[in-house]
Amino acid sequence: MKLKVNEDLHKERLKCTFNTEELTNFLDGGVNKTLSRRKLESFFLSDLNLKDKIPMEYLSHKERYEEAVRKSCILFKKVNEWQQSNDSGSNSMEVYKSLLGGSVGSAIIKDGSPFAVHYVMFIPTIMGQGTLEQQGEWVGRAFSNQIIGTYAQTELGHGTFIRGLETICTYDSATEEFVLNSPTLTSYKWWPGGLGHTCNYAVVIAQLYTQGKCYGIHPFIVQLRDEETWNPMPGIKIGEIGGKFGMNSTNNGYLAFDNVRIPRMNMLMKNAQVLKDGTYKKSVNDKLTYGTMIFVRVVIVRDLVSSYISKAAIIATRYSCVRRQSELKPGAGEPQILDYQTQQYKIFPAIAISLAYKFAASWLWDVYNDVTSQLEQGDLERLPELHAMACCLKAVSTADAAVAVTTCRLACGGHGYMNCSNFPNMYAMTSATETYEGENTVLLLQTARYLMKACQDAKSGLKLTETVLYLNNFKSLRRRNWITDLDCIGNAFLQVAGSKIENCYFAINQLIISGMSQEDAWNETTIQLSKATEAHCRAFVIQSFITTIKTIHLSSELMKVLTELCKLVCAHWMLNQMGDFLQYSNLKPSDVPSIQSLLEDCLKQIRPNAVGLVDSFDVRDEILGSALGVYDGNVYERLIEDANKSPLNQEPVNESFHKYLKPYLKSNL
Amino acid sequence: MKLKVNEDLHKERLKCTFNTEELTNFLDGGVNKTLSRRKLESFFLSDLNLKDKIPMEYLSHKERYEEAVRKSCILFKKVNEWQQSNDSGSNSMEVYKSLLGGSVGSAIIKDGSPFAVHYVMFIPTIMGQGTLEQQGEWVGRAFSNQIIGTYAQTELGHGTFIRGLETICTYDSATEEFVLNSPTLTSYKWWPGGLGHTCNYAVVIAQLYTQGKCYGIHPFIVQLRDEETWNPMPGIKIGEIGGKFGMNSTNNGYLAFDNVRIPRMNMLMKNAQVLKDGTYKKSVNDKLTYGTMIFVRVVIVRDLVSSYISKAAIIATRYSCVRRQSELKPGAGEPQILDYQTQQYKIFPAIAISLAYKFAASWLWDVYNDVTSQLEQGDLERLPELHAMACCLKAVSTADAAVAVTTCRLACGGHGYMNCSNFPNMYAMTSATETYEGENTVLLLQTARYLMKACQDAKSGLKLTETVLYLNNFKSLRRRNWITDLDCIGNAFLQVAGSKIENCYFAINQLIISGMSQEDAWNETTIQLSKATEAHCRAFVIQSFITTIKTIHLSSELMKVLTELCKLVCAHWMLNQMGDFLQYSNLKPSDVPSIQSLLEDCLKQIRPNAVGLVDSFDVRDEILGSALGVYDGNVYERLIEDANKSPLNQEPVNESFHKYLKPYLKSNL
Repeated sequence: MKLKVNEDLHKERLKCTFNTEELTNFLDGGVNKTLSRRKLESFFLSDLNLKDKIPMEYLSHKERYEEAVRKSCILFKKVNEWQQSNDSGSNSMEVYKSLLGGSVGSAIIKDGSPFAVHYVMFIPTIMGQGTLEQQGEWVGRAFSNQIIGTYAQTELGHGTFIRGLETICTYDSATEEFVLNSPTLTSYKWWPGGLGHTCNYAVVIAQLYTQGKCYGIHPFIVQLRDEETWNPMPGIKIGEIGGKFGMNSTNNGYLAFDNVRIPRMNMLMKNAQVLKDGTYKKSVNDKLTYGTMIFVRVVIVRDLVSSYISKAAIIATRYSCVRRQSELKPGAGEPQILDYQTQQYKIFPAIAISLAYKFAASWLWDVYNDVTSQLEQGDLERLPELHAMACCLKAVSTADAAVAVTTCRLACGGHGYMNCSNFPNMYAMTSATETYEGENTVLLLQTARYLMKACQDAKSGLKLTETVLYLNNFKSLRRRNWITDLDCIGNAFLQVAGSKIENCYFAINQLIISGMSQEDAWNETTIQLSKATEAHCRAFVIQSFITTIKTIHLSSELMKVLTELCKLVCAHWMLNQMGDFLQYSNLKPSDVPSIQSLLEDCLKQIRPNAVGLVDSFDVRDEILGSALGVYDGNVYERLIEDANKSPLNQEPVNESFHKYLKPYLKSNL
Repeated sequence: MKLKVNEDLHKERLKCTFNTEELTNFLDGGVNKTLSRRKLESFFLSDLNLKDKIPMEYLSHKERYEEAVRKSCILFKKVNEWQQSNDSGSNSMEVYKSLLGGSVGSAIIKDGSPFAVHYVMFIPTIMGQGTLEQQGEWVGRAFSNQIIGTYAQTELGHGTFIRGLETICTYDSATEEFVLNSPTLTSYKWWPGGLGHTCNYAVVIAQLYTQGKCYGIHPFIVQLRDEETWNPMPGIKIGEIGGKFGMNSTNNGYLAFDNVRIPRMNMLMKNAQVLKDGTYKKSVNDKLTYGTMIFVRVVIVRDLVSSYISKAAIIATRYSCVRRQSELKPGAGEPQILDYQTQQYKIFPAIAISLAYKFAASWLWDVYNDVTSQLEQGDLERLPELHAMACCLKAVSTADAAVAVTTCRLACGGHGYMNCSNFPNMYAMTSATETYEGENTVLLLQTARYLMKACQDAKSGLKLTETVLYLNNFKSLRRRNWITDLDCIGNAFLQVAGSKIENCYFAINQLIISGMSQEDAWNETTIQLSKATEAHCRAFVIQSFITTIKTIHLSSELMKVLTELCKLVCAHWMLNQMGDFLQYSNLKPSDVPSIQSLLEDCLKQIRPNAVGLVDSFDVRDEILGSALGVYDGNVYERLIEDANKSPLNQEPVNESFHKYLKPYLKSNL
C-alpha cells in the first residue's frame, strides 16, 4: 500500500526557495554523476535477495554474521554484473565507494560487510607495497574474489605504536622461507575485519628478523585457511574477537602463529627486500609505506563523515516537521517541533557541517591524488602536509560526526533510541571511526608535531606550506575592527589557531629552558597541543567552506542558502569556543551578541529551506533505513509496522510466561 | 584459576596516599552501610542461577527477553528471602536501589529488568494517588508480586506534552464503569517498560470524560492480561515496540484500547474523584500529582548518574595503568598510558564529577524527602524549587554522564568498543536517561521558567529561595580581584549564572517591548535560556561540592584528595565555558593561564591516587562487568577468554562457508 505524503512535509517542500535538484547535482559533481549514482542505487537496492526478512537486530550474533556472508556473496557477484553491463559511465571507484561507505552498502548490510577490509586494505596494500611480480600473482585473484584477504597489523597489546608490534617473522635461508611466531599473549593479532571466519589470506605486519638482526616491521602475505576445507592452516590459531558496540557483521578476528612457514616471495618487496641468502636491502624511503594508512583516513573523511552526518540531519529534520508537540501559543494548536528554536539549534548545524566536511574532504582527496602521483616520481615534498591534514581532519571530523549523530538522535526524543530510527546503528558506525585507523588524540598530536615545526619555520623565515601560511601573518589581522562578515570571521579563526599554536610553541620552549627534558615538556603541553591542532583544523574547514562559496557558480537562490549555512557553522563554532576568540582574535566582548544574533538569524533563515536542503542530499529511504526519516513522512505508521516485525510480537503470549512468570506469580498468592 | 594481580596495578595501589576504606565508608554513608551493602551484593551475586552461560549480547532479541524474565523471577524471589533472613539493617529501599539502579541489578540483567517499572512507577503511583481503600486493594498484591504492573502514560504521538495525550476514558453512569478507547494511531500507548509481554496490569493515564465534559488527564488501573492464560483482555491490543539502542530486556510495549470497560473504583481517587452519578470532584491541588515524576528524576540523579560515571572511570583508570604504549622518552620503554597528560584529562574529570553529582544528588534527595512530608501537610511552598532543581540536575547530569562514559570509552581505544568492556551497554543505559522521564531540553526550559520568575522576584525585592539567592548579590562579586582559590571560583560560577539569567530576562523583555508576543519572545530566547539554566545548575553543583568539603570531617590525607578533585571540576568546567567567565565574571584574560595551570596541576596531583580513588568506589567485578576494568588487571587474559565465549568460536569453520562462501569463491575461478 502506497501511503500519501504527510501534509506537513508536503507544505515544507512547497516553501523551499531553491531548486533541490541543482544542489543534488552540485553535491554529486554534475548532472551525469547524479544520474549514474541513482542508476547504481536502483540496480543494487532492487534485488529482493538482499532485503531483510527480519531486521538484523533481532537475530543472534551468529545468525547476523551468516546473513552478512550470504549477502556479501550476492553483493559482490552483482558488482561484476554491474561492471559488465553498465553503460552509465560510473567507474569502479564509485561502485566500491557506494558499497563500502555509508551509502548502498549500509542499506544492505547495516553493520558492516566482512569483505570490506579485503577491498579497502588487502588489495591496496599489495598494490602499494608489492613488486610488479607480486601484484601479478595476487591482485588478480584478489580482485576477482578467488581469495579473500584482510590486513593484520593491530595486536592485542599494540595499536597506535606500530613499532611495538610483537609478531615475529624470521627468515630461514636454508629453506628460503619466513617463519612466523606469536611470542606473547599481547602479540595476538586483534581487530582485523573479516579475519575471524571469512578470510583465507592476510597481509600480516611483523618484525622482520634475518641474519640474526631485527629490521623492524614489514608486510607478509600469509595463507590462513585451506581453500577446500576452510580449516585453519597448521600452526594458525584463529577466531573472532567477540561482540562489539556495532559492526557486528564485520567478523573482526584474532590470529596467532606457531612456527608458520611462508615462502620468501610472500614478503611484499616493493620497498625493502630480503634476498635469498638473507641479506636485507633497505627501502629507499620509509615514508613510501604511509600510503595505505593515509588513504584510509582520507576515505573516512570523504565517504563516511559527511554521509553519516547528513543522514542524521535528514532523519531529524523530516521527523521534526511531522512531529507536533506542546504549545507555543495557547489555543494555536501544537506546532511542528522544528519551529522550536532549540530544535533548530540541534539539527541545522548538522546540515551545515555535513557540507563543511564535504568541501574539506574534496580538498584532501585532490591533494592525496596529487601527492600520490608525486610520490611515484620520488617527490616527497608535500607528503608531511598531506599527512598532517589527513590526521587532524580525520580526528576532528569523526568526533564532530559522532556528536552530530547523537544530537540529532536526541532531537528525536525517545523515538530516536529505537533501532528502527537507525540512529543506534549509525552512532555505532560513526563512533567506530573515532578510534580505528588512528586513535583521534594520537592523530591530533601527530599534526601538532607538524605545526610546531611549521611555527619554528615561520620564526626562522623559512617557506611555509599552503595550510600553515597564516602563521606568518595572523597577528596583523588582530588590528582590524570587528565586522560580522565571512572574511572577518574566517580571519578570526586563523588568529585563534595561530595564537594557540604559538602559545604551545612558547610553552614547550619555556619548560625546556626551565630544565625539563624535551619529551617531558612535550607531554606536559599535550592538552594544549591537541586543542591548538583542533583550532587549526577548524580554521582550515572554515576557510575551505568560504573559498568554495567564493569560487562556485550556482543560482543566486542556492548561493544564498549555502552562504547562510557557512555562516551558521562559523557562528556555532565561535560560540562553542568563545573564550578563544575573546582572548586571541579581534572580537571584543561587546561583539559577542552579534555572533549570538548571527546564529539565531541563520536558524531562522534556514528554517523554510530545511526540508529542501535535506531532500537535496538525495538519500533513498533504503539507505536512510529510518522509520522517522522516510521521504513520505508517514512516521507513526512506520513505527507500528516496524514494531510488528519483532519476533516477540509473532505470538500473543511468550513462552516465558508458562515457564517462569506464571509459576512465580502463583507462588506469591 | 586465580590470576595474580597485575604488577603495574599492584604498584599503583602501594602509591596511594590515603586510606581507600575511609573514602568507601564516607561514600556509603558510614561503616555499617558499607558492610551491609557488601553483604547484600554477596547474597545476590553468588547465586549461580543468575549467571550467564552465554553473554547476553550473543543471544537473539527473543532469547534475551526470555532470559530476563527467568532471572527477574529468581531475583525478586530472593528479595523476599533476603528481607526475611537479613539482620544486617539494610532497609527495603537499599535493596530496590541496588537491584533497580546501576548496581547489583545491572550485573545480573545488564540491559534492564522488565519488572523495573512495576517497582519504580506502578507501586509508587498507587501509593501516591490511590485512596487508602485503593492502596489496600492493590499495593499488597503488587508488592508481593501476585500481579505485575506498569505505568502507561507516554503515547506514540505525545511524550513531553502530557496535556495532549489522546487516550480517552469515558464514565458510563449506567454501569458505573469507565470505558477506555484509543481514538487514533498516535494515541497508542508507547514505551512503558514491561508492557509488551510481562505485565498484566497498568496505571493508564487518559483524558477523563464524564457528564459530557473533559476534565483532563487522570490515572486508571487497567487489567491487561488474563491471569491464567496471559492472553490480552478483550478490546486490548498489545505488543512490544521493538529493538532499541539498549535496554532490550525491558520489554517496552505498546497498548491500544477498543471499548475496554473497568469499574469506577479503578480510577485512582486520592486527588480527584468521579462519583457514582458521574459528578466530578476536583482535586484540592493539581500539583500533588507531580510526586512520582519528581521522584523518578531524583532517583535518576542519585542512583544512575554517579554510578555509571564512576564505573566508566574505574574501567578506564585501571586499564590505563595496565596498558603500555608508545614512548615518552627514547629507550625508556613503553609508559603506562595513564602517564600521558591527555589520557589523564579524559579520565580524571570523570572521577571528579561522579563525586560532584553524588553530593548534589544527596542535597536533592534530602530536599525531596522534606518537601514530600511538607506536601502531606498541605504545604506546597518549596515544591517549585524542588521541581526546578530536579529538572535541571536531571538534564545536566545525564548529559554529562553520557559524555563521561563516552570519553572514558574512547580513552580505552578500540578495546572500549568491545561489548566485553561493558562500555557499549553502559552508554546505551546512560544515554537513555537523557530522553526518558522528561526530555532534557524541555526540562532545562522548565527550570528556566522558574529562574525567570526568580529574576523578576529579585528585581521586585521579593524573598528568594535558597538556590537562587545569589540573584540578589552576584554583581557585587565582580568587583573583587581574581585569586585562584575555591571561594573565588565558586563565586565566578555564580556571576556567570546570574549574568546569563539576567541577560535572558532582559532579552525577553526587550523583544516584548519591541512588539513581539510573550510566547514568541520566549521561543526566540530558548537557546540562551537553556544555556543560562545549565550555568545555574553547574554553579549549584560547584557550590554543593565546595560546601561538602567545608563541612565534612575526614582525615587530612583524604581531604587533600577530595579538594584536588573539587578544583579539577572547577577548572575543567571553567575552561569549557571560558567565554562566559571572561564576559561575566571577575576573571580577566590575564588570569586564564592560571586556570589552565590549575587543571594541569590537579591532573598531576591526582595521578598517584587515581587507582586508589577508583578502588574506593568499591564496585565488584561482576557489577563492573568489564574485561578492561577487572580488579586484578589481567586485562588481556580476560579479552581472549571473553572472545572465546562467542558462539562463532565454538566451531573452526562456520557453516556459511559451505553454504555461501565456497560456492562463491569457486565460481570466480
